Parts: sequence; structure tokens; C-alpha cells
Amino acid sequence: MITFKENEPYSPIKYVYEVDNILYKGKSQFQELLVFESPDFGRVLALDNIIQLTERDEFFYHEMLTHIAMHTHPNAERVIVIGGGDGGTMREVLKHDSVKKAYLVEIDKKVVDVSREFLPFVSSKLDDPRVEIHYEDGAEFIKKIKDIDVVIVDSTDAIGMARALYSEEFFKNIYNCLSEDGLYVTHSESLLFHREMTIEVQNTLKKVFPIVNLYSFAIATYPGNWWSFAIGSKKYDPRTPNKPPVKNTKIYDEEVHAWVFLPKKLFNRIMNKEVKW
Amino acid sequence: MITFKENEPYSPIKYVYEVDNILYKGKSQFQELLVFESPDFGRVLALDNIIQLTERDEFFYHEMLTHIAMHTHPNAERVIVIGGGDGGTMREVLKHDSVKKAYLVEIDKKVVDVSREFLPFVSSKLDDPRVEIHYEDGAEFIKKIKDIDVVIVDSTDAIGMARALYSEEFFKNIYNCLSEDGLYVTHSESLLFHREMTIEVQNTLKKVFPIVNLYSFAIATYPGNWWSFAIGSKKYDPRTPNKPPVKNTKIYDEEVHAWVFLPKKLFNRIMNKEVKW
Repeated sequence: MITFKENEPYSPIKYVYEVDNILYKGKSQFQELLVFESPDFGRVLALDNIIQLTERDEFFYHEMLTHIAMHTHPNAERVIVIGGGDGGTMREVLKHDSVKKAYLVEIDKKVVDVSREFLPFVSSKLDDPRVEIHYEDGAEFIKKIKDIDVVIVDSTDAIGMARALYSEEFFKNIYNCLSEDGLYVTHSESLLFHREMTIEVQNTLKKVFPIVNLYSFAIATYPGNWWSFAIGSKKYDPRTPNKPPVKNTKIYDEEVHAWVFLPKKLFNRIMNKEVKW
Repeated sequence: MITFKENEPYSPIKYVYEVDNILYKGKSQFQELLVFESPDFGRVLALDNIIQLTERDEFFYHEMLTHIAMHTHPNAERVIVIGGGDGGTMREVLKHDSVKKAYLVEIDKKVVDVSREFLPFVSSKLDDPRVEIHYEDGAEFIKKIKDIDVVIVDSTDAIGMARALYSEEFFKNIYNCLSEDGLYVTHSESLLFHREMTIEVQNTLKKVFPIVNLYSFAIATYPGNWWSFAIGSKKYDPRTPNKPPVKNTKIYDEEVHAWVFLPKKLFNRIMNKEVKW
């Protein structure tokens, strides 16, 4: 039995998981890594004691993070995933045949190594010839590259080293590395527990991108569960896909694409802080 | 610090809440009652150690349970709430001016008494002259009454004494007490943690009602969080409201009404067990 404590962004509920077996426990230069086997969730990856993914439900997060932007762009060829060292987001990116080059920019090599060894259900596509892995700071990497169609930030919670991935300066550098019809997407915490942060990300993004939106999905293993994703676009309205759905998704399809965006009035009430909780 | 354990329906995550202060702890003929003050959620009601509502987020559940059926019926005059002794569902029902008579049928008087004393934010409307409270088994009550427009079952989890409220026989008796355009609604557990039960409720309802559907909302304080609601209707399609939205809701409006229903393809994939987790 391990208790996971989420301090920042603060989680008012602590989530306790049964543990059958610890498969890996170690420390990198950046964080503590833990992989355990759960009777209910299969294999689980935690970083600094915060659940990052479970075998049972990782596809909800990875499909939602990836496929909205990747289907809004009609023909994404060059893609960057920042973070996402487990490989789950890259697995979804590579379902798009249009992709010719996909950069994985993960600051912590240990995450990739541990995932390759213990989490094949997410890491299995990291050896695809289209993938180029860079072990460096994504905020620096994007300053050196151009003509990217989609940038996906698959980071840990917006604290510590990941905090810089939510700054206006970072968003500007993302904007500059994107092609003229490029898109950017990130998760932006729980609408239930971290509503203020979700709103702040939207407002900061609006200073940089002409089209900004928010979508959400319920994820049981992230604190607060009503998980939000922030999307910035140069040209396309992200509410509408511009290509047919890729095959082999569990949740995503063209109907789900439209559905995950909040109804406009509710979205405005939340953004204007007319409704709080 | 209190750990709430959900055994049946089984919750694979245990949820731990900070407790500032216990306001009431007692036992009725039916269950253990606990009201505590939480630093993050305000006042919290637990029955048999399972969270029933928190001051911070109860409106998500109560609005969603109530307003879909109540806005699908164009003019509900006679309403039954089974369970719901805290009063939160009745508070939402009474926002509809069309209501002339609202029966609260709660088996456990202690829930009503404790809510009146410690949870005024939910119980405040129980003294409305349109409300008639019956302390008895809802499954028996509905056999003795007719011409009800909307029946709302606001029960504890589908175990123990609440299990009978999910049987085909009970659904038949509900059907028989409804007017010719009446509707029935209940919660049907978490789509993430109790998917099989959610599907079972849909399939059982289909044996009784001509129109059956499912809608959902993310609720952080119920296990699994992607909370489902099952609706049975004699005449109206519950996807579409047939009256303007009532005032003073926090979440519900006519756009949310349509949005909470799952996209058809995803709904079919779940119901046909083509996608599991």
C-alpha cells in the first residue's frame, strides 16, 4: 500500500493504491522513479510519487493529448513531443501515416530507459525509424528548430522543472518553431481541483496564439479527474477534425473530437469566474 | 485523516480526506452517519464511510441527477425523489415552478434529521409546502401511487439495501407509477470503475422502458469519477430539453443538457463491450 501525495498543484484528496510488487525504484538527476504492479491497474509509473500512467487507463490520457491536435492539422509531417519519455504519446503520434519526423525531447533519459524495460505497452514504438530522441530541455530544443506542424507537451504537473513549460516566453518560442498552420497542445491540470491554473494557461496562451481553446476528459488516476487540455492554433479551429480518424484508437473518433470541447456558455462561465467550486 | 474504503461496488483507489472537525457521528437502524468539516471541501456527509456529498462540489451531482429528466418533461407537476434524504436533489427539483407536489421517500429519517441540522446548503428547501416526506422504503411507496411525471432515485451505491432499486421488478413498478409521458432517472456508478454495472443497468432498463439512455459527468468525490446516470423515458427523447432552463443552476443549461450524453459511436462501443479498461 503506497500513498501518493500531490502537493503542488495541490490535491485535496490523497489517492491510495494497492501494490502487488515493486518492479523498479530508482533516482535520476531529476526525479524519483517508481514502477509497480497493481492488482487493479496493471503496471503503474510514478515520478516523485505522482502517478504518471497506469496500464489500465493510460490510453485515455494519451489519445486525448495527441489526437485532437493531430486530427485538426490535415497533414502533420513534423511533430515534437516534449516530455513523454514513457512513449505513450509517441505511440499515438505514429498512428498518423502523415508523420515523417517525430522528435521526442525528454530531459530525463532514465524515464525512457525504465519505460523501455518495464512499460512496453507505451514504449513499444520508440524504435520506429521516424523517431529521433533528444535528451535535453524541451524549452531549449524548440529555439533551434523550425517548420514543426504539431508540438505536444506531455510533462509532469506544472511545478518544479515543468513550470517553465507554461510561461509566455515558452509559448512564444513554441509559436516561432511552428509552421504557419501549426498547433500546440498541453495538459493543463484538473478543472475541478486546479481551475485557476487551467484558466491562467488559457489566458497566457491567448497572448501568443490567435486561436486558443480548452477540452477535457475524465481520468480516474489523475487528481481531480476532470482533466483539461489547452490547445493553441495558428490557423485551424481545433473543434473540427480535418482528416479521417486514424485506426486503432480506443476512445478517439470524430464524434469524440467535437464532444470533448466544453459547451460555449459553460466554458465562458468558468473562464469569467462566474461559476466556481 | 480518515480513509474511506469503497468495497462494493469495488473502488481500486482509496480516497483519503483531511478532517478538521467531526460535527456528527452516529448510527441509525440502517447505516453509520458521519458529518465532518474538511479544509478543502467544506462540510462532508458520509454514510457507512462512503462519501455522499461535499459542500464544495455537491451541485455537480445534484444538478446532473435532477435537471436532465426535469427539463425533458415539459411540465413536471408530480415528482418523487427516492432516497436523497440530504435534500440536495429536492432543492433542484423545486427550482421548477411547474412542480405542484414533490414526495421525498427516504427510508432513514436520521439522514434527513442530520442534514437539517448540519447541512443547510442542501436541506434548506425541505420545508417547502410542496414537499411531502415519507419515511419508508421507496420500492414499496411507488406501488401505491400513480400519475407521477418524474421519479428520481438518489440512492447510495448499488449495494445492500440500495441493490433492490436496480432490479427489473423495481423498474416495472416505477414504469407503472409514471404518467404516460413520465421519466425515471438514477445514477449508475462510475463508467471507469464499474462499467459492467453501468451496462447492466442500461440493459435491464431496456426491458421496461421504450427509450433508455446514459449520460455522464466527472465528479471528483465519487470513486472512478466519470459518473454515469441512467434514464428511462416513456415518450420524450431525453437528449433534448422541452422547456427553457431554470434559473440559479451552476452547471446545467440547455447546452450542457445535450453535451452530457455520450457520442453515439463511443456509447455503442462501450455498450457492446468493444472497448474496455
